[in-house]
Amino acid sequence: MKAVCLLSGGLDSSTCVGVARRDGFECYALSFDYGQRHRIELEAAARIARHFGVREHRVAQIDLRAFGGSALTADIAVPKDSLEPGTQGIPITYVPARNTIFLSYAMAWAEVLECSDIFIGVNAIDYSGYPDCRPEFIAAFEHLANLATKTGVEGRTRLQIHTPLAQLDKAGIVKLAADVGVDFALTHSCYDPDPSGRSCGHCDSCLLRLRGFREAGLSDSLPYRK
Amino acid sequence: MKAVCLLSGGLDSSTCVGVARRDGFECYALSFDYGQRHRIELEAAARIARHFGVREHRVAQIDLRAFGGSALTADIAVPKDSLEPGTQGIPITYVPARNTIFLSYAMAWAEVLECSDIFIGVNAIDYSGYPDCRPEFIAAFEHLANLATKTGVEGRTRLQIHTPLAQLDKAGIVKLAADVGVDFALTHSCYDPDPSGRSCGHCDSCLLRLRGFREAGLSDSLPYRK
Repeated sequence: MKAVCLLSGGLDSSTCVGVARRDGFECYALSFDYGQRHRIELEAAARIARHFGVREHRVAQIDLRAFGGSALTADIAVPKDSLEPGTQGIPITYVPARNTIFLSYAMAWAEVLECSDIFIGVNAIDYSGYPDCRPEFIAAFEHLANLATKTGVEGRTRLQIHTPLAQLDKAGIVKLAADVGVDFALTHSCYDPDPSGRSCGHCDSCLLRLRGFREAGLSDSLPYRK
Repeated sequence: MKAVCLLSGGLDSSTCVGVARRDGFECYALSFDYGQRHRIELEAAARIARHFGVREHRVAQIDLRAFGGSALTADIAVPKDSLEPGTQGIPITYVPARNTIFLSYAMAWAEVLECSDIFIGVNAIDYSGYPDCRPEFIAAFEHLANLATKTGVEGRTRLQIHTPLAQLDKAGIVKLAADVGVDFALTHSCYDPDPSGRSCGHCDSCLLRLRGFREAGLSDSLPYRK
């Protein structure tokens, strides 16, 4: 059984690919080149795709930079040492419509592959205020997908969006990642790595990751700047 | 008041821009370069954008060709002289997830512009079997958009998808187009134009358009091959 797995190369999406593989899916990994600051993320995605032996890994070029509006794609400073998930509204690292666009592409590929399963590593606990990580967003997308596609209209199968991390905190994700065989050193989470690719340890993403490892009682094999 | 208007350069989307302008919106036109066979479509979009004096016209590069699966983006012959809308299932000119992807980008730009109105020229009557032109699809997207965005989450405004052509047949669209000042000769509908850009008059899109003009009792100022 085929599944399209959204893969950024971060810990969460890498864990998702591991879960899909563990559950017997033949994985088609999909990454995006959307003008993000760090090609390092795409290199991590390629490493994880190889690590898990996915059937195919595609990188779609998308043009989110055209619209600006986020620290991850525009020239706004990445916030440091200020991790307060869920308490400060929506962070400036939010990319407009990102998960909607990512899931739309996943749906397009799924339709061509005649596959009815999509995996995405969204998380409702440590979601840091991104509106498009919430379960009600995913449910709405699943509903949309079954109206938008030939598959849905002809009633052949029901497209399903799998979110195996939805109810896990970061420590839970770290434990699940270890269970399904994620090689932590191959992943990348940092919003602000140095030129050699080492993680900063101070941005939201690093702080969340490090807290997850601490709480899981595991150590992170990823190199940090200090 | 701002509105993002999806503009392909065809008759329907051109009419939509005309309606948005008539209704007092400041229009931001959005087109897509998605590996479609004919750049002619994008040239028509640029002409219409100028014609209606939109505030800004952006062309986003997207990568639908990466997934194949349609006569409009892959090397499958375009069907000719076989117009039977709604009776033959979904035509092979269907592009997987196209309107979902287009609306996702429109939503991204709307969010950056802090605008809560999107216009799309979908049509439920002459929709030729595309699942993502149906009113229930649009309603599902509107619901999704209000869960996916900062605007929706913070409850500042409610994002609205306008579909002024939804309940019109092609003749009705032709009449509305004339009313709102569309210059027919600037638009482009043909799936299979010759190298100089002249329309074939035989593909689904030409047949629908010509029937619309006939039924509306108007004449099409667009040049056809014969």
